[in-house]
Amino acid sequence: MIRYKEYADELAQRIDAGHLKPGDRLPSVREVKRQRGVSASTVFSAYYLLEKQGYVEARNRSGYYVSAKAPLAAAGRRAAIAQAHAMPVDYSSLVFHILSQARQRELVPLGSAFPSPELFPLDQLAVSMGRALRRMDPWHTVDDLAVGNLALRRRLSMRYGMLGMDVAPAELVITSGAMEALNLALEVTTQPGDVVAIETPAFYGALQALERRGLRAVEVATHPRTGVELDSLRRVLDAHPVKACWFMPTFQNPLGCTMADDAKAQLVALLTARQIALIEDDVYGELHHGARRPPPAKAWDRDGWVLHCGSFSKSLAPGYRIGWVAAGRFAAALARHKMMSSLSTALPSQLAILDFLQERSFERHLRSLRHALARQQAAALRAIEQYFPAETKVTRPQGGYFVWVELPAHINALSLHRQAVQRGIGIAPGQLFSADHRYSHHLRINLGHPGDLRTEAALKVLGEIMQRRGNAVAVS
Amino acid sequence: MIRYKEYADELAQRIDAGHLKPGDRLPSVREVKRQRGVSASTVFSAYYLLEKQGYVEARNRSGYYVSAKAPLAAAGRRAAIAQAHAMPVDYSSLVFHILSQARQRELVPLGSAFPSPELFPLDQLAVSMGRALRRMDPWHTVDDLAVGNLALRRRLSMRYGMLGMDVAPAELVITSGAMEALNLALEVTTQPGDVVAIETPAFYGALQALERRGLRAVEVATHPRTGVELDSLRRVLDAHPVKACWFMPTFQNPLGCTMADDAKAQLVALLTARQIALIEDDVYGELHHGARRPPPAKAWDRDGWVLHCGSFSKSLAPGYRIGWVAAGRFAAALARHKMMSSLSTALPSQLAILDFLQERSFERHLRSLRHALARQQAAALRAIEQYFPAETKVTRPQGGYFVWVELPAHINALSLHRQAVQRGIGIAPGQLFSADHRYSHHLRINLGHPGDLRTEAALKVLGEIMQRRGNAVAVS
Repeated sequence: MIRYKEYADELAQRIDAGHLKPGDRLPSVREVKRQRGVSASTVFSAYYLLEKQGYVEARNRSGYYVSAKAPLAAAGRRAAIAQAHAMPVDYSSLVFHILSQARQRELVPLGSAFPSPELFPLDQLAVSMGRALRRMDPWHTVDDLAVGNLALRRRLSMRYGMLGMDVAPAELVITSGAMEALNLALEVTTQPGDVVAIETPAFYGALQALERRGLRAVEVATHPRTGVELDSLRRVLDAHPVKACWFMPTFQNPLGCTMADDAKAQLVALLTARQIALIEDDVYGELHHGARRPPPAKAWDRDGWVLHCGSFSKSLAPGYRIGWVAAGRFAAALARHKMMSSLSTALPSQLAILDFLQERSFERHLRSLRHALARQQAAALRAIEQYFPAETKVTRPQGGYFVWVELPAHINALSLHRQAVQRGIGIAPGQLFSADHRYSHHLRINLGHPGDLRTEAALKVLGEIMQRRGNAVAVS
Repeated sequence: MIRYKEYADELAQRIDAGHLKPGDRLPSVREVKRQRGVSASTVFSAYYLLEKQGYVEARNRSGYYVSAKAPLAAAGRRAAIAQAHAMPVDYSSLVFHILSQARQRELVPLGSAFPSPELFPLDQLAVSMGRALRRMDPWHTVDDLAVGNLALRRRLSMRYGMLGMDVAPAELVITSGAMEALNLALEVTTQPGDVVAIETPAFYGALQALERRGLRAVEVATHPRTGVELDSLRRVLDAHPVKACWFMPTFQNPLGCTMADDAKAQLVALLTARQIALIEDDVYGELHHGARRPPPAKAWDRDGWVLHCGSFSKSLAPGYRIGWVAAGRFAAALARHKMMSSLSTALPSQLAILDFLQERSFERHLRSLRHALARQQAAALRAIEQYFPAETKVTRPQGGYFVWVELPAHINALSLHRQAVQRGIGIAPGQLFSADHRYSHHLRINLGHPGDLRTEAALKVLGEIMQRRGNAVAVS
């Protein structure tokens, strides 16, 4: 028997026999090396094997510990419940805490930010990846370093062309998902201390990005159906030295609202006249439930003040981390910042998506994806009407996979969140969507998991928790 | 014939006939749509086809233009020469200008930052990628979002274990290459305005990263053979409120120097005692020419003050963009910053490298890579001795693929660079490696292209340019 397996077996027997108890620390690699005269890699391999078998777990910087011996799924649930009782207080921690919880597979993913990965043609992408890598010229790893693969940028340019938009490949920078695109867009349009206008409620990623860069946020009133209110925006621009706006004019997160074409045109004209950059987060645009893709505000950009940020993460290839930005007058600066921040975007991901777009029907995939999302939204809205308190209001977005729910004012969403987690359900409490936790009786509900048959039952459970009323829910 | 091909043919004939001349702008998509009644995508497809055929080229935000009709390689060379005469003045632009030039394939890549992509097992990685993606659970795209794939972090932990180092998977964050790792390390250890100690000469990426974050740099004397001088460091730390050091203790870029084990231990003890973070850039550590991998300074880290940044870009998988950081006491903060800046690292790249590490011999590949680099260095050093001026000094690194050349003081490296580019040779002038352009008669020479048979001849040409002496070289 291999040496490390022997050592692993020995430890497993000691754990089974109760000589090592849950929570006990295993000896450090150095200790074992010294005492046993074995190599560090033998010890590591043994611990790794035990970890895979569920006997032990690694803890940051303090080594390996004997695990609690519960079956994994139940243990995961228990951990989630324990977490729900230890809620952090500061904004950023709150967001991370709830988001990490929302990704736990045991929870019904109504609080998740992501659609079900089962909606995407990952097998076809794998075939595309294989073909693309077999064909790849090794020198592509050095070509187009900061801006990204030229053929992919041409494809994107053609896709803009299909929307009647004239975006040259040279205006595009490929990024590690839209998140990097948005951060780079902030970097090239602002300096720390500047004022940036955001929607309210806003995507928490925007709030975090502003905080991280030392920017000041001003909020613009955002209608649950028609998006950014231009009168409110004008007042904000008159009152504050706004350097950039970070808006989602199409299928806004969390509201799901979309600005009318006309309003988008006015928005761009207004900002262009004042030489204010528009950072347009358009990651849900392809997920329209109706026949027509709402054009981005970028479609009305004549002078290059709009930085349009897109991504394949929600439309085609989750996990591949391919986004982009059409950065207008900021394109050259953005390429430099991309180079300084992460040099370049993963080439295999770029080439696989390029191959898919060339060889396969992206449109056919999108049609079935849109259909699945629209169908789930319709079903879930019926369940919300049926099970949630009568005073509940809910948005009915024309695209994307979020709905925004306004509950009766006495219900505290954080408290509801805690109780929901104990019942195995994740939700995104409204408090996440503003820095002052203003949306205290609101929820964002993820309806991007049409294959998850637990959804309706989960909505029913949420309704039951709320109907119980009283202190259990209302007290935070 | 398909409509767009008809239109492309028509334009090609007009170009061939000289009705459309090099530099002429093609009509905008909107104009053609209006005049011909065709769709935007027809026009785009036609322009895209013409671009592929070399008839036209896209220019940022101003549309498509008729290309000069020269064969592509010659045109590239001409562009490089034209660029060499239009040298920008500010530091950041200088760096970008020279780096973008250095990547042009027609130039002998002595100025490149990258090793030859032909040194890497890209075909085997493609096979690993195929296998990994076929096996992939779609839910992995949501698991381990910020920190990266757990199995890959365990593998890295085991590799640390083989060096006798105890780095738990939970201390690791997978990043988009080392560049992102280093930037995140700066983010979690400093605030804008803080002081960071760097080597001199330093990697220009470090200088840019500091500038980008609004940090102040202080330089620590760095010996061409033994690296950071601890006495100099002590004086710097006594005189300045240093928050972090960004050092490359192993095979430093550009010098190639490596600190002795003992000096690394003292370095970590010194910084730990003062609670100063060490950002350790260790991207060349695997490329040792001798039998032994110099241990990272992190090997002496007891209290988590060292953030060890590594990458597979230079050892296994260029273009895959997989790096990591073992962030010590900053691990949790770093994971949050990773999430905020780019959410997660491309999963296909992570899984392909994991499969390679599990199934193939990374060590065998590394042995042949190291051997090729050592052999090229030996040959190039002989050529430098033979052809360069007698007073030339050159480092003889024990690893990596750079040598640092100190030329006679009357030679201006930027001027040499310009003349070299005209002869089809790229070099990295010493001016790139300090903010004040101090290293004016120095070069970093890339010897990471053992398959490039032009290297010796290029070194001979450089020698000839310098031997001509006088104003041609000396005047900047």
